[in-house]
Amino acid sequence: MQSDTLKKILKQIQDGNISIDDAMNKLKNFPYEDIGFAKLDTHRSIRNGFPEVIFCKGKTNEQIVAIFQSLINSNDLIIGTLATQENFDSVVKNFPNAQFHKKARIIQLGKTPPSKTDKIITVITGGTSDIPYAEEAAITAETMGNKVIRLYDIGVAGIHRMLDNKNILDDSNVIIAAAGMEGALASVVSGLVACPVIGLPTSVGYGASFEGLSALLAMLNSCAPGIAVVNIDNGFGAGYMASVINLQGVHC
Amino acid sequence: MQSDTLKKILKQIQDGNISIDDAMNKLKNFPYEDIGFAKLDTHRSIRNGFPEVIFCKGKTNEQIVAIFQSLINSNDLIIGTLATQENFDSVVKNFPNAQFHKKARIIQLGKTPPSKTDKIITVITGGTSDIPYAEEAAITAETMGNKVIRLYDIGVAGIHRMLDNKNILDDSNVIIAAAGMEGALASVVSGLVACPVIGLPTSVGYGASFEGLSALLAMLNSCAPGIAVVNIDNGFGAGYMASVINLQGVHC
Amino acid sequence: MQSDTLKKILKQIQDGNISIDDAMNKLKNFPYEDIGFAKLDTHRSIRNGFPEVIFCKGKTNEQIVAIFQSLINSNDLIIGTLATQENFDSVVKNFPNAQFHKKARIIQLGKTPPSKTDKIITVITGGTSDIPYAEEAAITAETMGNKVIRLYDIGVAGIHRMLDNKNILDDSNVIIAAAGMEGALASVVSGLVACPVIGLPTSVGYGASFEGLSALLAMLNSCAPGIAVVNIDNGFGAGYMASVINLQGVHC
Amino acid sequence: MQSDTLKKILKQIQDGNISIDDAMNKLKNFPYEDIGFAKLDTHRSIRNGFPEVIFCKGKTNEQIVAIFQSLINSNDLIIGTLATQENFDSVVKNFPNAQFHKKARIIQLGKTPPSKTDKIITVITGGTSDIPYAEEAAITAETMGNKVIRLYDIGVAGIHRMLDNKNILDDSNVIIAAAGMEGALASVVSGLVACPVIGLPTSVGYGASFEGLSALLAMLNSCAPGIAVVNIDNGFGAGYMASVINLQGVHC
Amino acid sequence: MQSDTLKKILKQIQDGNISIDDAMNKLKNFPYEDIGFAKLDTHRSIRNGFPEVIFCKGKTNEQIVAIFQSLINSNDLIIGTLATQENFDSVVKNFPNAQFHKKARIIQLGKTPPSKTDKIITVITGGTSDIPYAEEAAITAETMGNKVIRLYDIGVAGIHRMLDNKNILDDSNVIIAAAGMEGALASVVSGLVACPVIGLPTSVGYGASFEGLSALLAMLNSCAPGIAVVNIDNGFGAGYMASVINLQGVHC
Amino acid sequence: MQSDTLKKILKQIQDGNISIDDAMNKLKNFPYEDIGFAKLDTHRSIRNGFPEVIFCKGKTNEQIVAIFQSLINSNDLIIGTLATQENFDSVVKNFPNAQFHKKARIIQLGKTPPSKTDKIITVITGGTSDIPYAEEAAITAETMGNKVIRLYDIGVAGIHRMLDNKNILDDSNVIIAAAGMEGALASVVSGLVACPVIGLPTSVGYGASFEGLSALLAMLNSCAPGIAVVNIDNGFGAGYMASVINLQGVHC
Amino acid sequence: MQSDTLKKILKQIQDGNISIDDAMNKLKNFPYEDIGFAKLDTHRSIRNGFPEVIFCKGKTNEQIVAIFQSLINSNDLIIGTLATQENFDSVVKNFPNAQFHKKARIIQLGKTPPSKTDKIITVITGGTSDIPYAEEAAITAETMGNKVIRLYDIGVAGIHRMLDNKNILDDSNVIIAAAGMEGALASVVSGLVACPVIGLPTSVGYGASFEGLSALLAMLNSCAPGIAVVNIDNGFGAGYMASVINLQGVHC
Amino acid sequence: MQSDTLKKILKQIQDGNISIDDAMNKLKNFPYEDIGFAKLDTHRSIRNGFPEVIFCKGKTNEQIVAIFQSLINSNDLIIGTLATQENFDSVVKNFPNAQFHKKARIIQLGKTPPSKTDKIITVITGGTSDIPYAEEAAITAETMGNKVIRLYDIGVAGIHRMLDNKNILDDSNVIIAAAGMEGALASVVSGLVACPVIGLPTSVGYGASFEGLSALLAMLNSCAPGIAVVNIDNGFGAGYMASVINLQGVHC
Repeated sequence: MQSDTLKKILKQIQDGNISIDDAMNKLKNFPYEDIGFAKLDTHRSIRNGFPEVIFCKGKTNEQIVAIFQSLINSNDLIIGTLATQENFDSVVKNFPNAQFHKKARIIQLGKTPPSKTDKIITVITGGTSDIPYAEEAAITAETMGNKVIRLYDIGVAGIHRMLDNKNILDDSNVIIAAAGMEGALASVVSGLVACPVIGLPTSVGYGASFEGLSALLAMLNSCAPGIAVVNIDNGFGAGYMASVINLQGVHC
Repeated sequence: MQSDTLKKILKQIQDGNISIDDAMNKLKNFPYEDIGFAKLDTHRSIRNGFPEVIFCKGKTNEQIVAIFQSLINSNDLIIGTLATQENFDSVVKNFPNAQFHKKARIIQLGKTPPSKTDKIITVITGGTSDIPYAEEAAITAETMGNKVIRLYDIGVAGIHRMLDNKNILDDSNVIIAAAGMEGALASVVSGLVACPVIGLPTSVGYGASFEGLSALLAMLNSCAPGIAVVNIDNGFGAGYMASVINLQGVHC
Repeated sequence: MQSDTLKKILKQIQDGNISIDDAMNKLKNFPYEDIGFAKLDTHRSIRNGFPEVIFCKGKTNEQIVAIFQSLINSNDLIIGTLATQENFDSVVKNFPNAQFHKKARIIQLGKTPPSKTDKIITVITGGTSDIPYAEEAAITAETMGNKVIRLYDIGVAGIHRMLDNKNILDDSNVIIAAAGMEGALASVVSGLVACPVIGLPTSVGYGASFEGLSALLAMLNSCAPGIAVVNIDNGFGAGYMASVINLQGVHC
Repeated sequence: MQSDTLKKILKQIQDGNISIDDAMNKLKNFPYEDIGFAKLDTHRSIRNGFPEVIFCKGKTNEQIVAIFQSLINSNDLIIGTLATQENFDSVVKNFPNAQFHKKARIIQLGKTPPSKTDKIITVITGGTSDIPYAEEAAITAETMGNKVIRLYDIGVAGIHRMLDNKNILDDSNVIIAAAGMEGALASVVSGLVACPVIGLPTSVGYGASFEGLSALLAMLNSCAPGIAVVNIDNGFGAGYMASVINLQGVHC
Repeated sequence: MQSDTLKKILKQIQDGNISIDDAMNKLKNFPYEDIGFAKLDTHRSIRNGFPEVIFCKGKTNEQIVAIFQSLINSNDLIIGTLATQENFDSVVKNFPNAQFHKKARIIQLGKTPPSKTDKIITVITGGTSDIPYAEEAAITAETMGNKVIRLYDIGVAGIHRMLDNKNILDDSNVIIAAAGMEGALASVVSGLVACPVIGLPTSVGYGASFEGLSALLAMLNSCAPGIAVVNIDNGFGAGYMASVINLQGVHC
Repeated sequence: MQSDTLKKILKQIQDGNISIDDAMNKLKNFPYEDIGFAKLDTHRSIRNGFPEVIFCKGKTNEQIVAIFQSLINSNDLIIGTLATQENFDSVVKNFPNAQFHKKARIIQLGKTPPSKTDKIITVITGGTSDIPYAEEAAITAETMGNKVIRLYDIGVAGIHRMLDNKNILDDSNVIIAAAGMEGALASVVSGLVACPVIGLPTSVGYGASFEGLSALLAMLNSCAPGIAVVNIDNGFGAGYMASVINLQGVHC
Repeated sequence: MQSDTLKKILKQIQDGNISIDDAMNKLKNFPYEDIGFAKLDTHRSIRNGFPEVIFCKGKTNEQIVAIFQSLINSNDLIIGTLATQENFDSVVKNFPNAQFHKKARIIQLGKTPPSKTDKIITVITGGTSDIPYAEEAAITAETMGNKVIRLYDIGVAGIHRMLDNKNILDDSNVIIAAAGMEGALASVVSGLVACPVIGLPTSVGYGASFEGLSALLAMLNSCAPGIAVVNIDNGFGAGYMASVINLQGVHC
Repeated sequence: MQSDTLKKILKQIQDGNISIDDAMNKLKNFPYEDIGFAKLDTHRSIRNGFPEVIFCKGKTNEQIVAIFQSLINSNDLIIGTLATQENFDSVVKNFPNAQFHKKARIIQLGKTPPSKTDKIITVITGGTSDIPYAEEAAITAETMGNKVIRLYDIGVAGIHRMLDNKNILDDSNVIIAAAGMEGALASVVSGLVACPVIGLPTSVGYGASFEGLSALLAMLNSCAPGIAVVNIDNGFGAGYMASVINLQGVHC
């Protein structure tokens, strides 16, 4: 550790073996990032309690297992996102306690922590095909210590389905609105509630939905304010952002 | 006129001056488009009563005046679309009775006909900035003989504004939904009513609305069926399509 | 049911157990959506007689069968769109009367109703590759109670093929024009007829057709008015929109 | 007011002039939106204290003045966004107390309220050209009752400028990161802090920045989680979203 | 056949059973397209000698065989484009004389005609991966009666390869330039020769070639005139266009 | 001139002052482009008789005049394309014989040559707004020595207008089809005729025409073969390409 | 300066007023960026001798003058890029020695340094319209201490123009290739030379050049390696990158 | 060889069998490219020592083996890029000494040469998924005779990872920055160092990364100068460009 190197320099000053000017020079060349690292580390510790996250997509089964292995000692909870059944089969052979949130494509190792706040994140979807992305968001938020309510298939094609659940929406602290196609869900819910809305555009749809572009643009152009948007199909990102908002005051 | 040529051939058969086979050959080479033209003309007459339309955009004032001049004799009603104030000033000098629908950018020469049906076309907008395009649609539909109701600024940012007017929407025979930004208006209204909805995406918005692309894609991807879409800002096209639907049974 | 809650409040007024002002307050907080629901329901009943529709794409065989099961009691006719042969095999095991419109990718359970109007929807295509989308539109319209005429492979590469069928086009009440590549079919037919045209751009083509974008833009920019457009490959949407137009006066 | 109609019905029950079943029927047909409106109104009142907002873009000076006039009685604070100098000149003639935040393009009528929370929203920009959008966000947040710190021109071209201000970033409750060009600012800051980051892509740049598309895509694809994005140049939307997050617990 | 109907009308005139005016009316309603068809047919006969063409892509093996079957009697030469090995296997079972141009993905039934002109079409490619599309163009042109010279892999990465063959280029009557990636081949060759150049952009490349978009745009923007472009990978279209140009004076 | 240098080397061989091997070495290092230049020059002379062309766009009036000045001695005919009225005013001051084709935005200095062939180039447009680009093509072709027929405003919105002129189309040797909006004109005419068609997409239209992209894609995806496309609004390119095709056999 | 703060801490250790552990803690909290800043500063000093650069675009005349003022004391050479004539007029009033490179849109204050290396940067363009961007690159490189050769208007439409100058190209250490339209210049030159090529796509062109997108994609897809690309019209970036390459070994 | 033809002509002059004028004429028609070829060859020899490169993608195993075969005699080192395991299996059967850089997808035949310079190319990546493209760049650079340092997974999500390695970055002569998603890595590193940076955008990411478009645009729009960009996923191109820069002064 460079910490020792730093100590050694300070010791030399203390002992009078080195002038302040020489120490200044040494410190200027001393890799600041090590000190910086400590500082950044506090930042990291602020987030302590959050699960470690492994993006499984594009990794081999062997790599995924190895990373779980290396993280298992120092972490209570590890999740692997965008995981396949095949990924899970490899993991569970080595960690029989691992569980698979199939719809959400998340492998979980370790227990979901008790919720750190009573504030609620509500995850809503326009249709049933948006559920995988919504579940990815919901599980992410839960493993980060949030209470999550799911309201699926309440899209604007039948607006009464959303209105019927207005009290649930009103009681939410953050809402994640997952929708493909025209993505109107996010605008409409944002016009109904007072809490922040995270738009989660999905690639659900066909033709001129252009793999989620349609929903993405719609959510970015919402005529109702109080909404911000994550990447297409990025359930993890939506769940993480919602959690960061929801846990404010809890952590810092 | 080729009509004479045709008559001459028929006369020759009648007079026995030409065999049927020779006549057949002549007719095969006879420019079909003249006969065709007559036929197409009946088609045109089917639409009789519709105003003659001049697209003013990209024409000089002189050209616009000249076309009004040439159409004035054989038409009760002429409209010029996408007209500027300057266009109108030139027209009104020559035709003091001409009137200018400023918001709709339409010059009208001749009286709006009495409505040909009691069925109603309702034109709705998400915001106030969509009004010029909505007005272009409304005036177009009115000059084609339709009753039009206008419901402006009822966008989904405040969904109650649309719900408050649900009985008007329910009584409509065709609805034109003009909206920019995320264009959710069209999907939401289409989920509420039983009649056909014409989506009119507008270029209203900024940034990632990409001059109306956002609203266009949203309307094309509506999760609620019973909707079809016209070009961005094409109020005339929306009004015309709505009118063609609304006047079915009236004309044919 | 909130219906009971509402009754209870009214009973309290009747019994003099509660003042009108208190009742007013309670009602203001009473979830309006339940009342709203009833109203929306009448809207839904307006459409009564239309088949229930299941979007099969993105659903498992088990889910599809389950939804058919739950709908079978209260519906005379159910259709499943974007269905695969494999989807159908699962359905027909449970419902031996189910039939498969293979080209249209539609599973049908229950009889096609007799047509509710003599007005005709004509479905035309530019080429043979557009037929699956055209069939999806045609079957949709038929199951909704319309007479449908099919005119396939009459694209503008040989304009006489369309002109040869002009009388059929003239007798149509609504025309669905399905075409990929340059999508000129919709503009040309719209210039020939007086009835509304629904443009159905398809993903047929290659290279710079960009999966249907070329046909979509072409149809949106049609120089002939009286046309509106649905999403790329969205045969169901085209058939539904055409049906809504064609059955006007029949239902409301 | 339908409120009277409702009262009348309740009175009839109270007076025994109508049965509960009849009242039930009447209420079912009673326009729910009026009750709904009341409910939505409470929702609106939740936001009470927020300034009324007028989008000036696309409105005439007369319209803007008129709207200020109509809002002045019932509101302590009104802001007009995307306003020009010319807009302001018209407004200030009628309301001499109006002030103009020129850089932010915001007209303000009424006093900025004292901050409702000690939590801080920090607005950072990559360069000086992003400042107008950042100011729009900052003023919006301030008029909604937030303390705002501005850190401008700390873009990643010289990463030390951001690192130099890490303690300010660490003390923030919400960060708005405004950047054009490659928009890397948002990712980098999001990797440094624990609080939620609102990405505000700007149209600053040229060539392949495609009017902000480059920054927008970059922010949506941030490899660091804890970030969500608003529309290009939408400073108001960013400030509003940040405020909604920052005032949680204050209002509900 | 409507031919009979026409004859009948003429007979009636001849027999004096119908007045000329009545005949005129009947003829006006007589489907002009039948007469038109004859005319269009002469147009088709102008192209006589060209092979019949079947687009195999998107057709089943059964359909392809059936179409070959139906065309075999009245045609000396039939080609099927975009054909797979599997397509060919089905065809050759029924037509043992069929041959497969594997690289060009063309099935040929019947003999290539002797060339109708001494003028030469030269097909060049930038690299070896462009060869399939070039071959599709070359075979198409050959089966239409043209002499074709192939110059493959002479891309601008080594400009001397093109310069080495300048005399061949100079002796060409039409040049087809097939290239992917940056598509510079077309511009460079067009600056070197006096004859018309058909740009054939290919989808060869990766990353920001966007499946041929890069080459397409490059060819459309050629700074050297005397070039026009066909669709991405459309070897048939390029060969056909080149042939139509090359055979001018031969046919008309 | 390097011609002299070359002569000198040859002279040295002739005089025996240099060995063949030394000469070989010198020639290998001799700038090949000078020899090449001569060769390329013959190529250029092949095109002799074509007007010199100045792209005026992006040049100052002074520059344009200067280039005319420098070309005037060695050329019978010079044209300047994309010229403004202001450009022309400067030119005509210096060259009183210069004429301005205003619609085509072409300045012409020198006489249009007599036509070099009886073969006809026909330029057609969909609407009147396409005329400037069509005229640019027509004037270009005329100054290159072609007979040009203009058929304007025969777009597919009224297909009979094109059919009415089928004999003119049939008599053409090359057709230039200029159209904006959905660009269907090119496909339709290509399906009607046997000669090559040059598609000239124009930026005419609005909304989703995206400045000519719609027409460009449509023409590239034409379902009728025998068509190739030039850049959007590139009338000069279309006229040049058509001329190169039309004058084949005349020049080489 | 934090330098003092650091010195003070070291002094306290030296004086025995503080323990090493306390010093360690203080240093950990000591803003590392200050040390970092020193380090980054050396980095900055590495580049010493480079001119200070002011991006004038989007700045007011007052701002530009003020920045020149603040930089004038500590810098021998300052340049302002993307400057207008109006910008320069303001600057020259205050700094009579300022000069304006009009074509390059660069204001220069201070003398161009003598060249630091004999290696040559050659800037080439396809046409004359690319010159402003090429000049911006050339002046940038010159003010950074490079010898620059300009070869303008040697585009691939006449390939001999490039070949004629091959020895200049061969003698270059870095080549900047500026071209719009199809951008083939960069590929062709890259195939001819051994040195690195910087592709500078320009927005020159029209129609489907899409403001430089065509040239950008072409250069990115160059089939010849040894090329990398900067942003559209970014002459400064190209000149800077070329200079950084050209001065390697000179500075470090 | 045309060399003989040239010799013959020179001989004829020497022998007095041909006049200088006749020789001049013959030479003018003499294919200049043969002389040019020699010249270009020297250019090629400049690059001598570089490995021969085979793009394996889109070639059959047989073709790849055959090309290796034909190159083996005259080359010390041959590499095949974008090779699959299956490609390698075929190659290694014939060339047992062939080795496979699996991650880099490169087949290597012959020994990596000793490094020709002590200057270092550093290849950095944002994440682990970018490694294949980084490895392709690294192996390419190594086989061209460069020392390469790899710094993987130091993306901006944790900026300290990059800062920790600043001395390595500072000691680099060229840096290749490979990153997908938002591609901020390239901008950030470019702001930290003095040497040229090659941006290598990768297709890593999902949703609105649009297969690398997001990273590509970000790198092109870098606010820090001293960076140029290669095509998406083009590791070979990045390695080649870096090598060309790094070996300057070594070769010429």
